[in-house]
Amino acid sequence: MNLELITTGTELLLGSVLNTHVRFLAEQLFPLGLRIDRQTTVPDGPAIGTLLRESFPRCDILIVTGGLGPTTDDVTRDEVAALLELPLVHDESVMEAIRARFARRNLTMSPRVALQALRPNEARVLPNSHGTAPGLYLAPRIVPSMGRLSPHLFLLPGPPRELKPMVVECVLPILREILPPQPDMEIRTYRVCGLGESMVEERLGEPLLSLGLEVGYCARPGEVDLRLIGSTAQLAAAEPLVVEAVGAFLYSKDGNSLEETVVHTFSQRGLSLATAESCTGGTLANRLTNVPGSSKPFLCGFVTYSNAAKIRDLEVPEPLLQEHGAVSQHVVESMALGALRRSGADYAVATTGIAGPGGGTDQKPVGLVYIGVASRDGKVLSQRHLIPTERETFKGLVAQAAFRLLLDRLRESFPENPPSPCVG
Amino acid sequence: MNLELITTGTELLLGSVLNTHVRFLAEQLFPLGLRIDRQTTVPDGPAIGTLLRESFPRCDILIVTGGLGPTTDDVTRDEVAALLELPLVHDESVMEAIRARFARRNLTMSPRVALQALRPNEARVLPNSHGTAPGLYLAPRIVPSMGRLSPHLFLLPGPPRELKPMVVECVLPILREILPPQPDMEIRTYRVCGLGESMVEERLGEPLLSLGLEVGYCARPGEVDLRLIGSTAQLAAAEPLVVEAVGAFLYSKDGNSLEETVVHTFSQRGLSLATAESCTGGTLANRLTNVPGSSKPFLCGFVTYSNAAKIRDLEVPEPLLQEHGAVSQHVVESMALGALRRSGADYAVATTGIAGPGGGTDQKPVGLVYIGVASRDGKVLSQRHLIPTERETFKGLVAQAAFRLLLDRLRESFPENPPSPCVG
Repeated sequence: MNLELITTGTELLLGSVLNTHVRFLAEQLFPLGLRIDRQTTVPDGPAIGTLLRESFPRCDILIVTGGLGPTTDDVTRDEVAALLELPLVHDESVMEAIRARFARRNLTMSPRVALQALRPNEARVLPNSHGTAPGLYLAPRIVPSMGRLSPHLFLLPGPPRELKPMVVECVLPILREILPPQPDMEIRTYRVCGLGESMVEERLGEPLLSLGLEVGYCARPGEVDLRLIGSTAQLAAAEPLVVEAVGAFLYSKDGNSLEETVVHTFSQRGLSLATAESCTGGTLANRLTNVPGSSKPFLCGFVTYSNAAKIRDLEVPEPLLQEHGAVSQHVVESMALGALRRSGADYAVATTGIAGPGGGTDQKPVGLVYIGVASRDGKVLSQRHLIPTERETFKGLVAQAAFRLLLDRLRESFPENPPSPCVG
Repeated sequence: MNLELITTGTELLLGSVLNTHVRFLAEQLFPLGLRIDRQTTVPDGPAIGTLLRESFPRCDILIVTGGLGPTTDDVTRDEVAALLELPLVHDESVMEAIRARFARRNLTMSPRVALQALRPNEARVLPNSHGTAPGLYLAPRIVPSMGRLSPHLFLLPGPPRELKPMVVECVLPILREILPPQPDMEIRTYRVCGLGESMVEERLGEPLLSLGLEVGYCARPGEVDLRLIGSTAQLAAAEPLVVEAVGAFLYSKDGNSLEETVVHTFSQRGLSLATAESCTGGTLANRLTNVPGSSKPFLCGFVTYSNAAKIRDLEVPEPLLQEHGAVSQHVVESMALGALRRSGADYAVATTGIAGPGGGTDQKPVGLVYIGVASRDGKVLSQRHLIPTERETFKGLVAQAAFRLLLDRLRESFPENPPSPCVG
C-alpha cells in the first residue's frame, strides 16, 4: 500500500511552527505495517489542489492535514470536492456539535463557522472532540477526470491536539478495516550511549543483517539509536547479539530515554534521588519530572547558579570555591555530597560547567564541565568533559552524561543483575 | 523565484527524527525575500531521483538535504549527476580535507569514505567544517533530457550540526549573488498571551490589512503569534495599533519567548529572581537558564517535589501543608516567600499542582495548579488555574502562566514605563 502525507500550512513553511505530524503519524501507522512513502508540505491556498492532483494517481492511501478551518485560506474541503466532482452538502449533525461546543463555552458563533459543517457528499464524518472542524474520510471512487480510482482519503485538522485523538479514535480503526492481514512485524529501538554510529554498525551490522532483519542507525547528540524491524522470532534471536556486542553501552531496549530509564530503575529498586545543578540549570530535574511516576524516586532538586546558593543550599565550603573555582572536580563532588545530605536521598547527581557563550577563560574554556554522583555509602564519582557547543545542546549533552554516570554507578552497586538499566 | 526543499531520510518518515531543517532554512531564507514554496521528504534510495525529476521543471532554486554520506543508500550525488548528464570526478582537495579530519581524530578511514570526494563535474564544493561530506552547488545548465535549464541546485548534508554552519557560511552568500535586489521587507512577530486567536484577529485584523501588511496568526499552547510582513514604514505604522489593541496581552515584539522577556526585563532593571517549583519540576529554571545572560538575574531554583523538601528548603510551615494540602493557595504563597527569604532575590515565583496522570482527587483534580509571585516589598500575588492535559504540556502551560504573572507583577511595580515587558 503506497501511503502519502500532505501537511498544509503557511506557518510550517515560514518556520514559525515545527512539523510534528510526520513523526506522530509515522509512529501510529507503523504497527499497522504502513510507512509514509512521501510527505509534502504546501502553503494554505490553491497549492493544495495542485498537489492533490499530483498525488492521487500515485497512492492507495492519502492523508491530508490542515485547511479545514473557517478562514478563507482553508480550501482543502473545496479542492477535494472539486477533484472528486462531489457536491458539498451541509451536515446538520456536525452543525449541532459545533453549536453545542460554542454554547458550552459561552461563545458567540461567527457566520463563517458554519462552513465547517459542509462536507463532500459521501464523505464520512470523523468527530472532533477537541475543536470545531471535523475530519472526513472518503472511500475510493472513480475520479472522472482521471479515469481511475481515488485513494482512501483522510482529511484531518491541523492543530496537534485535535489531530492526535482523531487519528487514534477514528483513522486507525478505518485503516484496520481496509488493510489486508499483516505479517507479524515489530520495531525495536535500542538506545546506545557512548559509542559512535560506525562503531555500533561495525560490531553489529553483519550479524543482524544475516538474521534477515531490517537494520537502521540514527545518530543523535550523545546517543545512537539502533532500530531493528522484523518478526518477533527474529527480534528474539537478535537480542543476545545486541547485549553481547554493545551491552556496556546499552541504556534502553525500547527506545526509552535515559531519564525514563533512571526513573524506572530507581523506582524498581525503591531508591531515591536528588539533583544539584549549576550549568544544566534545571534540565536534569525537568527531564526527570517529565516521566510519569517520577515523584516517587525524585525527592528534590537544587538549581544553584550562584556561588552563594552553592554555599547556602548545598553546604559547599567557601574556601573550596575560592581555591578551585566553581567549575572543578572538588566543587562538583561537594555539591553532590551536599545535595545528598540535605535531601536524605540515596543518590545525588551534580553538574557544574561553563555553558557559554560568555564566561570562558584559557584555563577553563566554554564547554568545560564536571559531573558527579554521590551515594549514601559515602562513595563519590566524578567525570570531566569538554563539550564546546551552543547553550541548549550543551545542557542536553551534560544531562545525557550525568544520567549515564548515575546509571553506571547503579550497575556497579547491583552487578548481580547486569541488564538492570535496560528496563524499557 | 520558486524555491523547493527536498529533505531525504528514511528516519524522518519512520518518525525516529523530527524534521527541523524546514524551520531552520525558512528562517534563514526569509530575510533574502525567499520562501519555501514546497517541502518534500522521501526515503533514502531511488525515490530521490524520481522526486528530482519532478521538481526540476517547477523551480528556480532547489535545496536537497541528506544522501551525501558514504553508505549504499546515500544516492543524491549519483542521481543528480545522472540527471544532469555530468560525469562524477574525484576532487583531491575534498579528499585532502577528509584525510586531515580523520588524522586529527586519530581514526582509520574505511575505503567507502573516499566516495564523499566525488562530485559532479562543474559542481562547486561547499566545505563541511563539522563532518566529512562536503556540500555541492550546481549553477543552472541545460538538462538535455528535459530541454530546459536546471534550477540553482544546492546539495547539503543531513545532520543539523553540519547543515547549519554550511547554510550560513556558503549557501546564503551564493544566494545573495544570484538574487535580484530585494524590496525592503521585514517580518515582525508579536507574542500575545491570554487572548485567543479569533479575539486577536477581531481586534486587529482589519486595521492591519488596511495598512497593506501581510498578516498571519499562529495559535500555540498558551499564546498566539501575530506575524506581520511588510515594509519598514508599514511595520512602524502598525506598531501603535498593536499596542493599542492588545497591549495588555503583549509579551514580546520580536517573537521572543516569555523566558527571554523575563531575563531581559530583570537584567535591564538590575533585579534578581529565584524559582520554587513543585509541579513544574525544574521547567521554569530550565527555560530561564536557556537564555544567554540568565546567570545575572537568576540566582537559584528549588525543585521541591516532596513535602519534606518544601518544609526544609522553603520553610513552608508543616501545619499549612497539613491543613490546606501541598496544592493550595496558602502553600504556593508560602513557597514563594520562602524562596525569596532563602535566596535574597528581589522576586520569587512558585508553582504547585497536580500534573497527572495519577494523584488527582474529586476536590483536587489532575490539572489543578496554583502559581505565586512574592517580592521584596512583602507583596504576594497568586492565581489558581485548571489545566487538565498531558504531563509535559501541563508543565509548559504552567510555566507560561507563571512567567506572565511575574511580568504582570513587574508592570504593576513599574507603571511609569508600560511597554517594559516588550523588550524583544
